[in-house]
Amino acid sequence: MSRIEELAMAAGFEGEAVLVGSAARGTWLSGDHDLDVFIGVPEGSSLLPALEVARLVAPKFEERYAEHAYVHALFDGFEVDLVPCYMVEDASEIISAVDRTPFHSRYVSARITGLEDEVLLLKQFMKGIGVYGSELKVGGFSGYLAELLVIRYGSFVGVLEGASRWRPGEVIDLEGHLSRSHEDPMVVVDPVDPGRNVAAALTLDRMFTFAAASRLFLREPSLEFFFPLPASPLTDDELRERLAERRSTLILLEFAAPDLVEDVVFPQLRKAEQSIRALLERGGFSLLRSDADCHRGVAVPYGCQGEISPSEGGGVLRILLELEVAVLPRVERRFGPPAWEEDHAKKFVESHPDPLSGPYVEGGRLVVEVARRFLGAEDLLRSQVAGLSLGRHLGPSLRRGYNIYMGEEILEVKDPEFRIFIARYLSARQKVG
Amino acid sequence: MSRIEELAMAAGFEGEAVLVGSAARGTWLSGDHDLDVFIGVPEGSSLLPALEVARLVAPKFEERYAEHAYVHALFDGFEVDLVPCYMVEDASEIISAVDRTPFHSRYVSARITGLEDEVLLLKQFMKGIGVYGSELKVGGFSGYLAELLVIRYGSFVGVLEGASRWRPGEVIDLEGHLSRSHEDPMVVVDPVDPGRNVAAALTLDRMFTFAAASRLFLREPSLEFFFPLPASPLTDDELRERLAERRSTLILLEFAAPDLVEDVVFPQLRKAEQSIRALLERGGFSLLRSDADCHRGVAVPYGCQGEISPSEGGGVLRILLELEVAVLPRVERRFGPPAWEEDHAKKFVESHPDPLSGPYVEGGRLVVEVARRFLGAEDLLRSQVAGLSLGRHLGPSLRRGYNIYMGEEILEVKDPEFRIFIARYLSARQKVG
Repeated sequence: MSRIEELAMAAGFEGEAVLVGSAARGTWLSGDHDLDVFIGVPEGSSLLPALEVARLVAPKFEERYAEHAYVHALFDGFEVDLVPCYMVEDASEIISAVDRTPFHSRYVSARITGLEDEVLLLKQFMKGIGVYGSELKVGGFSGYLAELLVIRYGSFVGVLEGASRWRPGEVIDLEGHLSRSHEDPMVVVDPVDPGRNVAAALTLDRMFTFAAASRLFLREPSLEFFFPLPASPLTDDELRERLAERRSTLILLEFAAPDLVEDVVFPQLRKAEQSIRALLERGGFSLLRSDADCHRGVAVPYGCQGEISPSEGGGVLRILLELEVAVLPRVERRFGPPAWEEDHAKKFVESHPDPLSGPYVEGGRLVVEVARRFLGAEDLLRSQVAGLSLGRHLGPSLRRGYNIYMGEEILEVKDPEFRIFIARYLSARQKVG
Repeated sequence: MSRIEELAMAAGFEGEAVLVGSAARGTWLSGDHDLDVFIGVPEGSSLLPALEVARLVAPKFEERYAEHAYVHALFDGFEVDLVPCYMVEDASEIISAVDRTPFHSRYVSARITGLEDEVLLLKQFMKGIGVYGSELKVGGFSGYLAELLVIRYGSFVGVLEGASRWRPGEVIDLEGHLSRSHEDPMVVVDPVDPGRNVAAALTLDRMFTFAAASRLFLREPSLEFFFPLPASPLTDDELRERLAERRSTLILLEFAAPDLVEDVVFPQLRKAEQSIRALLERGGFSLLRSDADCHRGVAVPYGCQGEISPSEGGGVLRILLELEVAVLPRVERRFGPPAWEEDHAKKFVESHPDPLSGPYVEGGRLVVEVARRFLGAEDLLRSQVAGLSLGRHLGPSLRRGYNIYMGEEILEVKDPEFRIFIARYLSARQKVG
C-alpha cells in the first residue's frame, strides 16, 4: 500500500491506498475472494493514472472489467484486486459503485470490533446452507449485509433469532433514515447511502432458506449447517437408480461456454434456461424443475454426438430440464377469442379450416382441437432452440453446436463436475424446518 | 278439456282446464314434448281433487312428480301432461312454479299472432345447433324464451341479428320493469314476474354458441343449421382411426342407470362427471375434455368385465374422460406453507421425513418431492371412484359395479348409441363463426 502511494506521487498525482472489505476488519472468511485494495484519486481527476500505478505495483496480474477497469494481481499467493476509485466527500455523491466501498468499510470498522467472530460464524453458516454471496448465481447475502445483520442483532445467534421471525418485506434501518420505498423481499437501508437497499440482490427464496435454516439450527444445532458433507459425483448405478425412482424425463442441453468470467456468463445462462423453459411450456410440456451450471474443470467427451465445437478454455454450459412426460398427445386444444368478438371469432374459425375437433364454445371462448406440431420434447428443442433469445454470448456459442441427452442418455456424461451437479439437483435438500 | 270441467263439477269443486304451452298458440314444434293441460283450482283449496280428476279423465296414464304430482297421459297417440295448479290473481303470488305457466301463455298469446312461423323457425334453428331446451342437459333456450325473443326482435332474422351483437350480461326487459340484479350470462326479465330471469338456465356457452351460429347463418345461410346431418355410429375402423389421430388417453366409465327420468338422472350424472374430473386433476392428470350421457335403448354387453350388474330397465350411464397422458412420473412436487409460517413449516417438513428431493424453498413456499401414490389414471380411478360423491342415486348404482375401458379397449363397446355419442364427442363441431 505504501508502494502504491509512492508510485502515485512519482506519477504526479495524489493517490490514497485503502484496504477495504472483510480483510480490513478481521471478518475475512477463509476460501473467500482475497484482498481488496482501493486506489483513491481526488474527485474530478482521471482514474487512468491509478490504473497505471496498479499495473506497475503488481508482479503478476491481469486486467478485469466491472463498472470500469481494475487489476487482478497475485502477491505471494494472495489474490488482490487493485481498484481505482474516486475519493468523494459523501457516499451519496459517488461516481462509480466502487466509490461507495470505502464508506462501507469505515462504517463497519467503527462498529464491528469484538463482533468479528460473530460475523465469521454467520458467514460460514450462510455459506454452508448455500445463501452466501450476492452474485446472481446465488442471490444471497453479501459480506457487508452479513456484517450489518450482526451490528443490528448483536450476535450470530441474535441474527438467527431475528431471521426466524422475518416476513416478506422485512425492513432493517440501522440509522433510521429510510428515504424511499423498495419492492424487494427485504430492505436493509444502506447506513452510508439512504436511497440504497443493501439486500437488493437477495431473493425471496434465499431469504427464507436462511430464515427456515435459522429456526432449525436454533432447535437442533449441528456442525453440518456450517460444513455440509460435500456431494460426491453419482456413479452410473446411483444415477440410474435415481432416475428410476423419479420416472420423470430429464433432458440435458450442453454447449461450449464462452471464455468469460462467471459474472458475465451466469446471467446469460439463467436467461437461456428461462427461454428454454418457456419454449417447452408453450409446447405444452409441464416442467418439474430445471437448473443450469458452468463446468470448467474437466475434459468433456465433446463431439460424442458429433455436433459441439471443442471449448476454447471456457468449459461447458449445461442446462438440465426435468419434464413430467417426454411425449404429448397429438391433439392439442387451441383457445381463440371470446365468441362475442365478431371479427376475431371469424378470423379464428377461418384460420383453422380443418381441425380434428371443433370449433366449439367453451367458457365463452372459441376452441378448436388441432394436430400438435412437436409431440416430443426433444424434437421441439432440437428444432427451436437455436432461434431462441439466449443472451449475447451464449446464442452464438449454442448455434455453433450443442448436445442433447434425454433420459438414460444422460449416463453418457461422465464429467465428475456434472455428476456432482446432478447429485445436488436430485437431492435438492436444504436444511430448513 | 270440457270433460275435465264436468268431472270437477261432479267432484264438487271449481276446476278450470287451460291449454297452455306452444300447442295453445301455434308455436308447437313437431317432435317436441306434446300437450300441456293445466287444471286450475282456486287459491286456498287442495290440489288433490284436481289430480283425482286427471286420473279419471285419462284412458292410459302414469303419475309423475316435479314440484308436485301430475298425470302423464296418452290420448289418441298424443302425450298429454295434466297438471294441477292454483289459479292466482297475479303471477307474483304463485304458490308453485307451474302456477306461473298460464300467465306466460296469456302474455305470449296476446302478442304472437302472425309471428308463429318466426317462432317455429327460431326453435328449429336452436334445435338444429343444439341449444334448444332449458333442462340441465342442454342449458339452452326454453320455448317461452324463444317466443319472448321473437316478440322483442320482431322476426326470426331479427333475433339472429340481435344475438350477433350480444355480450355477456345482456339484458332484455320487454315491460321495462327489471326489479333486481342477476348474475346470469343473460337476463330476460319475465314480463309476468319482474323478479324472475326467464334465461336463468341458459349457460354462457349455449348463449354464445347461438350468437356465433347466428352470425355464421346470416353470412352463409343453409338448411343444415335447422337439420344437421345425423351422426352415424362410428365403425371399429373409424373409431380406431380417430383415436390414432388424437393419441390422447380416453377412459370410459360405465355403470347401470337408475330407472328414473332424465331430469333426475342428468344433474347427478354431471355431478359425477365433475367429481371424477376433480379426482383425476388432484391426481395430477390434465384433462382435455369429458362428457357424459345416458344410453337406454340398446342391450349393452354387460359383465364383459364381470363387474357390472344387469341394468333394471334404466339403461347405462357413460362418462367419457380424455386425458393428455395415461401415466405420470413417480416423482411429484408437493407444495407446503410459506416458509415464514413457523408452525406450519415445521409440521410440513416433519410430515415428509424421507422425500425423494427437498425440502427446499421455492416462491417463498416449502416444497418436497415425494413418490406419487397412483401413477396410472386407471389405477387411481379404480381405487377411488367408489368413494366419491356421485349423487344420491348414482353412488349406490356405481358401487354395485362398473366397467372401465381405457384407450383401445373402448372398441369393445359396440352399442350404437355409444358409437354415436363418441362420434359427436370426437367431432365436437358447432356451426359457429
